[in-house]
Amino acid sequence: MTLRRHLYNLLELRDEKPLSGQILNGVLLLLILVNVLAVILESVEQYHRSYASWFWYFEVVSVAIFTIEYLARVWVSVEEVRFGKGWRGRLRFICSPLALIDLLAILPFWLSIFFSIDGRVLRVFRLLRVFKLSRHFSVLEVLGTVLRNESKTLLSAIFVMIVLVILASAGIYMVEREAQPQAFGNIPRAMWWATVTLTTVGYGDVVPVTVAGRIFGILITVLGVGMAALPAGIIASGFTAELARRRDLYELTARKLLQDGDIDARDRRQLIKTREELGLERIDAQQLLRKVSMSSPSVEKTAPQHCPHCGKPLHLSHKNGSQPGA
Amino acid sequence: MTLRRHLYNLLELRDEKPLSGQILNGVLLLLILVNVLAVILESVEQYHRSYASWFWYFEVVSVAIFTIEYLARVWVSVEEVRFGKGWRGRLRFICSPLALIDLLAILPFWLSIFFSIDGRVLRVFRLLRVFKLSRHFSVLEVLGTVLRNESKTLLSAIFVMIVLVILASAGIYMVEREAQPQAFGNIPRAMWWATVTLTTVGYGDVVPVTVAGRIFGILITVLGVGMAALPAGIIASGFTAELARRRDLYELTARKLLQDGDIDARDRRQLIKTREELGLERIDAQQLLRKVSMSSPSVEKTAPQHCPHCGKPLHLSHKNGSQPGA
Amino acid sequence: MTLRRHLYNLLELRDEKPLSGQILNGVLLLLILVNVLAVILESVEQYHRSYASWFWYFEVVSVAIFTIEYLARVWVSVEEVRFGKGWRGRLRFICSPLALIDLLAILPFWLSIFFSIDGRVLRVFRLLRVFKLSRHFSVLEVLGTVLRNESKTLLSAIFVMIVLVILASAGIYMVEREAQPQAFGNIPRAMWWATVTLTTVGYGDVVPVTVAGRIFGILITVLGVGMAALPAGIIASGFTAELARRRDLYELTARKLLQDGDIDARDRRQLIKTREELGLERIDAQQLLRKVSMSSPSVEKTAPQHCPHCGKPLHLSHKNGSQPGA
Amino acid sequence: MTLRRHLYNLLELRDEKPLSGQILNGVLLLLILVNVLAVILESVEQYHRSYASWFWYFEVVSVAIFTIEYLARVWVSVEEVRFGKGWRGRLRFICSPLALIDLLAILPFWLSIFFSIDGRVLRVFRLLRVFKLSRHFSVLEVLGTVLRNESKTLLSAIFVMIVLVILASAGIYMVEREAQPQAFGNIPRAMWWATVTLTTVGYGDVVPVTVAGRIFGILITVLGVGMAALPAGIIASGFTAELARRRDLYELTARKLLQDGDIDARDRRQLIKTREELGLERIDAQQLLRKVSMSSPSVEKTAPQHCPHCGKPLHLSHKNGSQPGA
Repeated sequence: MTLRRHLYNLLELRDEKPLSGQILNGVLLLLILVNVLAVILESVEQYHRSYASWFWYFEVVSVAIFTIEYLARVWVSVEEVRFGKGWRGRLRFICSPLALIDLLAILPFWLSIFFSIDGRVLRVFRLLRVFKLSRHFSVLEVLGTVLRNESKTLLSAIFVMIVLVILASAGIYMVEREAQPQAFGNIPRAMWWATVTLTTVGYGDVVPVTVAGRIFGILITVLGVGMAALPAGIIASGFTAELARRRDLYELTARKLLQDGDIDARDRRQLIKTREELGLERIDAQQLLRKVSMSSPSVEKTAPQHCPHCGKPLHLSHKNGSQPGA
Repeated sequence: MTLRRHLYNLLELRDEKPLSGQILNGVLLLLILVNVLAVILESVEQYHRSYASWFWYFEVVSVAIFTIEYLARVWVSVEEVRFGKGWRGRLRFICSPLALIDLLAILPFWLSIFFSIDGRVLRVFRLLRVFKLSRHFSVLEVLGTVLRNESKTLLSAIFVMIVLVILASAGIYMVEREAQPQAFGNIPRAMWWATVTLTTVGYGDVVPVTVAGRIFGILITVLGVGMAALPAGIIASGFTAELARRRDLYELTARKLLQDGDIDARDRRQLIKTREELGLERIDAQQLLRKVSMSSPSVEKTAPQHCPHCGKPLHLSHKNGSQPGA
Repeated sequence: MTLRRHLYNLLELRDEKPLSGQILNGVLLLLILVNVLAVILESVEQYHRSYASWFWYFEVVSVAIFTIEYLARVWVSVEEVRFGKGWRGRLRFICSPLALIDLLAILPFWLSIFFSIDGRVLRVFRLLRVFKLSRHFSVLEVLGTVLRNESKTLLSAIFVMIVLVILASAGIYMVEREAQPQAFGNIPRAMWWATVTLTTVGYGDVVPVTVAGRIFGILITVLGVGMAALPAGIIASGFTAELARRRDLYELTARKLLQDGDIDARDRRQLIKTREELGLERIDAQQLLRKVSMSSPSVEKTAPQHCPHCGKPLHLSHKNGSQPGA
Repeated sequence: MTLRRHLYNLLELRDEKPLSGQILNGVLLLLILVNVLAVILESVEQYHRSYASWFWYFEVVSVAIFTIEYLARVWVSVEEVRFGKGWRGRLRFICSPLALIDLLAILPFWLSIFFSIDGRVLRVFRLLRVFKLSRHFSVLEVLGTVLRNESKTLLSAIFVMIVLVILASAGIYMVEREAQPQAFGNIPRAMWWATVTLTTVGYGDVVPVTVAGRIFGILITVLGVGMAALPAGIIASGFTAELARRRDLYELTARKLLQDGDIDARDRRQLIKTREELGLERIDAQQLLRKVSMSSPSVEKTAPQHCPHCGKPLHLSHKNGSQPGA
């Protein structure tokens, strides 16, 4: 095994990672967390004043480690089949979302050495390192899949939301602008109340006070409940559909493996691998297997394997090409 | 192809639209968005004062374009099969929801030339142009279908909401009116608090202060969580049911096509068309196809009715053991 | 048809009601709505002072009509099969929930003639007439079924809610009582904040101000999101399960009718009746029928109706008792 | 039956508990509720001052009873199969969650006799007795199962929540810190607003006032609706999946029992036991049974293999038209 392959295993492999890889990833995870904590604490004036140099040293060390990590990941990326070989494969890796997040975590620092960058912008980019965590939380995958699958429907919910915000702010502007010009004097200003109400956040810093305004407000708060229900409904349906999809896929695989006859050790390994890839619970998989094995074998029972008259096998072997009657 | 047919293709056809049609629709979409933005900005006093004439010119140009668009749509509507031919078809188009929205976007302007209409009313109708966007967002279709399917159940949720608001406002009026006559002095006034609480918006501009009022308030806030859960539950169930319905429909189509024998090129085209009409994901459709092709015909194929060697029928009675021909 | 049967049809029959029955029910519905409105308006001091006698006359007329309605319903209740005949049937009707609601709407008035009852209590009972509406909204049935099915799970959610409120109020009392003794001075007082926060209502009349209080508050607000998610999830699952149950029941009925052979006019009537009883959409029922007729007939195809050797029918008629070989 | 077995039946058996066991459990349940109430009331200064000795006596009696209960449970725990025999079994019981809760309810009191413990800490632990209730509410089991099954997905939602809170507080700190240094002067301080907004609680004690802050706030409130939708969606999907799992399990059991032939009295008892273990409604189980009995064996019954008249096999080859025996 080459050094590159070894390093790839340390950095990338997810489940059968060796202990050294687990430690390395744990250290990187911790470093991200401490980085985020550092940015948060540095925003407190008194900590910033007292420990400015420590924050600076920590930043330099962090960027150094993250840069080495980034370069290492680029180097070993060709080990992954999906990116392909050579510099083309590396370029494809560099353009992948996770690699861009890694780049964003270090680039601003290096640019700030050559160019003068506002400290505030730098701080924002340092906080974006929080996204580096997503590499370490594989549970996010299901959530991501559901949100991607439902993205169109969620977009239509956001569209409805925007239309409702516009109409609600226009309406409250009509009925309330004279009573409270400060809060509802024009539509853009009224949008603050409209959004806060339709999302059921309800700060209460601006509220309608006239009778007409309150009647309109009652209408909008009720619409807000419906509005807030839309994403919940969409996401609930998305999770249900995704689980059903994965269960169906597992069932199909199991049915296919069962069609060839009994389940042997190789089939069993493939079933376990399929289950893990789909993220199904062990108990779910067992139940699906029982269901499949109960439904299909009845076919095999009524479908005899040999002719009861001549005793020959029924299923013509399509492989060695023997002809019936030959 | 006639001019009318050509114009129809430019305006109406959704998916295989030519580039010119895409540009035309893009321009119309942009015009709607700028119109909405203009109404919002014009409500700001300082912009209104500074750019009043520009707003006016833009309004005139917009109405001109929307009027031409409306007349063109009426003219070409007979090309669409579902409306039918001749003036009767056009009348049916004019009464369709999307055409009424288009009419509402321009009619107030033309009426304001002949009649004196209050500027505020005009502005409201100009904002209703935002509904013209719905023609351009096909994703809204699923949302609309779900809301239509669940409309009865959602209505019953709204009915429960109204009953709860009435009872909650009567209850808080009973216990809190003497402590805070300004906020809870009569039932209509108490309704503001009841709605704001039951929808979990919770502005906090009026809150119960007596012990009895707070105990009653705790009851109502808890009921509010249940209340807000109803539409979320109904919509979630609606989306799940709609997706299941579409998947079933696709499965039925696939099963029917498979019954006649193998899937040929024509069947495949129909499957793709069905999938697109139902808005199913490609991966969902593939999985359903695999499921269908694995469940039904494979049984008949693997279970021959006669021995291929001696030609005799295979199915013996396993119970009384009698031999065929014996 | 007797007068009692005639009156029963006017009052009770739901779908095939004659026009006269529809008008009668419309009038009763309107009367309930105006009654509720009257109670709401009478709570406004100025209306009460100006129109006190009108409110009184309206109340007397309403109670008269509701009393006649109640007595009529009691009289005709024996026409309904499920209550049984005679005075025992009537007593069973009187104890049914809908009849108790009707009684509650009139009893306080009649009692107030003989006994002196506080006007406030009377007003509460008059408002309870809003429940009389439930007789007129059949859509509430599905909602009621779902809530009844999920009642156990919803109760466990309420139990979790109560435990969380107790722990949250004890927690905030620990950390915040010295900073704000007025709001968090003892646990019962702190419960107001805990409930308002855990239900995500968030009035903002009392909020933690110390650092420890805010950290604890952040924890509780996040728990509140989870808390509010429980009923939404339970109700969503309840609606999905109820719809699946009804679809399954329709499928079972259809499958049973198909087993006997072709669908004749009588079967079709029964299918329509089943669909209406289950409240399924016409399009859903059609799809289920297509699914059933596609899955089972393949059995009928491979299962011949007549013996290919002797031509006699295979399915021994269990009805006329003819013996094979006879 | 030994005394230990008798006591075990009194304390542990859930459904077929004898009356004496029901009374004992009722008394224990009541004692827990009164304990919780006592802690709540004791936090009110005036009650504490007036009835301090009564609270103390009640505490001593409660701890005495709970201690006896705990010792009894430890003693009889070896009767339960899953813990195993002897002191090893008892140790396993002592480490089980329910037993730890029981221990936590009494340990602080006994420790306070030997060591000096702060009264406030003692009070917290006394309130934890509320968890002792979970032993008495079996409905919590489904809720617990769903939350356990979905724990990974819920954790990923919490992870997204934390990331959003960090980014939202950093964002509002950027745009609002100069206008309101008291509320948004550093990121930790801004987190209060970010959490309160993203959970849609919306107290309104701190709100953005600048234009940039409000635009950012609008973005965050909308994200908050999506955020609050995540757990609702996950829990809804979890309940739906759990119900489907239990129905599938019941169907599998029923199918297996049917495969051996008819359903006899023993099968029926097992079906009832399975239904109760799975917590399925009686009506659900009946429908599933009808479905199972209609799908599988009826086919074999209605499709005979041989003509009942001439005894010859029925299945002819419909494709090449060859006659059997020809």
